[in-house]
Amino acid sequence: MRVGILGSGLMGGKLGTLFARAGHEVVFSYARSRKKLEGLARDAGGNARAGTPGEAAREADAVLLAVHWSRMDDVLKQAGDLPGKVIVTCSLPLNAANTELVIAHTLSGAEELAKTLPKARVVSAFHTVPSEVLFGVYEARRKASRPSLVYCGEDKKAKAVASELIRGVGFDPVDAGPLQIARYTEPFALLVAQLAYEGTGGPELAYRFERFRSRGSENRIVVKV
Amino acid sequence: MRVGILGSGLMGGKLGTLFARAGHEVVFSYARSRKKLEGLARDAGGNARAGTPGEAAREADAVLLAVHWSRMDDVLKQAGDLPGKVIVTCSLPLNAANTELVIAHTLSGAEELAKTLPKARVVSAFHTVPSEVLFGVYEARRKASRPSLVYCGEDKKAKAVASELIRGVGFDPVDAGPLQIARYTEPFALLVAQLAYEGTGGPELAYRFERFRSRGSENRIVVKV
Repeated sequence: MRVGILGSGLMGGKLGTLFARAGHEVVFSYARSRKKLEGLARDAGGNARAGTPGEAAREADAVLLAVHWSRMDDVLKQAGDLPGKVIVTCSLPLNAANTELVIAHTLSGAEELAKTLPKARVVSAFHTVPSEVLFGVYEARRKASRPSLVYCGEDKKAKAVASELIRGVGFDPVDAGPLQIARYTEPFALLVAQLAYEGTGGPELAYRFERFRSRGSENRIVVKV
Repeated sequence: MRVGILGSGLMGGKLGTLFARAGHEVVFSYARSRKKLEGLARDAGGNARAGTPGEAAREADAVLLAVHWSRMDDVLKQAGDLPGKVIVTCSLPLNAANTELVIAHTLSGAEELAKTLPKARVVSAFHTVPSEVLFGVYEARRKASRPSLVYCGEDKKAKAVASELIRGVGFDPVDAGPLQIARYTEPFALLVAQLAYEGTGGPELAYRFERFRSRGSENRIVVKV
């Protein structure tokens, strides 16, 4: 495939490099300088070149949109008309400080509950998996790799209690931070529900967070971008 | 620990049963009938009993709140004052039809983009993992169990393209449905970012969805609840 990269920063630079390595024809565009684009293209090998957003989009089978939300209008203006084009976007609607979604929820059920119960110690937990998976996870609790379960809250003692409960029923507890993070975990719960109930494969769905570290093939890129 | 269950439906009934099996002392409360609570307690074994919300909360080290959002005020009124109590909540702020969050975002960046580009075929992808994990995942792509990567969109062709790109860089593509699901995947991306950048273990974080099926110890419960 021909893939045009609109926004060759951390995500766009790395994904474009990997697309090229995977055999696709890549055009990098929209970085701080033409030189950066050319460096990326050179490092990515024979399948990649530097170009303008218009060039990146023109003959692309897919356009990867990987700009900061604040640059969206500008890059789209430069890319020109995109009728019928396949746009794969990984741009999140973040504010300038990258601290929160500008198109988003501004409260969570857990925070609302904590307001209702100002003297209680509220932890949000167990909401991110469907009930259908609970017994399967419990039965598999002696196996090496447990599924994760995120929880969040303000109170240390309460979080320790939640963590123990989570571990006891077979999950690996993952502390996601303060109660405000329920603004992310609650929509995540809906994503899990969507996959469990609307997807294929059945509702017995859990998730596991895992780390994948590069053995070094990334270093050059990180320095260059 | 003593765990009081407020809301003994699918989640509360199952979690309470597993807490009891894991050795905790459980009081089930707030189901459609006292008989249901007693059936749950009997099936959960010696560590469980039925009670009122007040009884469930009174001496509990932790209270599991597992009611439908619409029942929240009522169950809290019945549970009485909860000063200092550890409340573990898995109640999501869902509307009566369980179709969407009532405390939530009502739009996503991806949908906004699709409005801006009405003739293009927008797919939301690659936003749910940090750039730091990309090379590690790519290098591990020949291994048996790949991490998942969710994508969503309206256009079949565009989704097939996105899926191929995702697979090519080492992830297992997971079709999460229409573009509106970006309302869940975008906050999920922020959750992943929170774990990657604010948690321990480093930013090279990916996730995998997995299914865990019960080998049968659940069946009795499902019928009873």
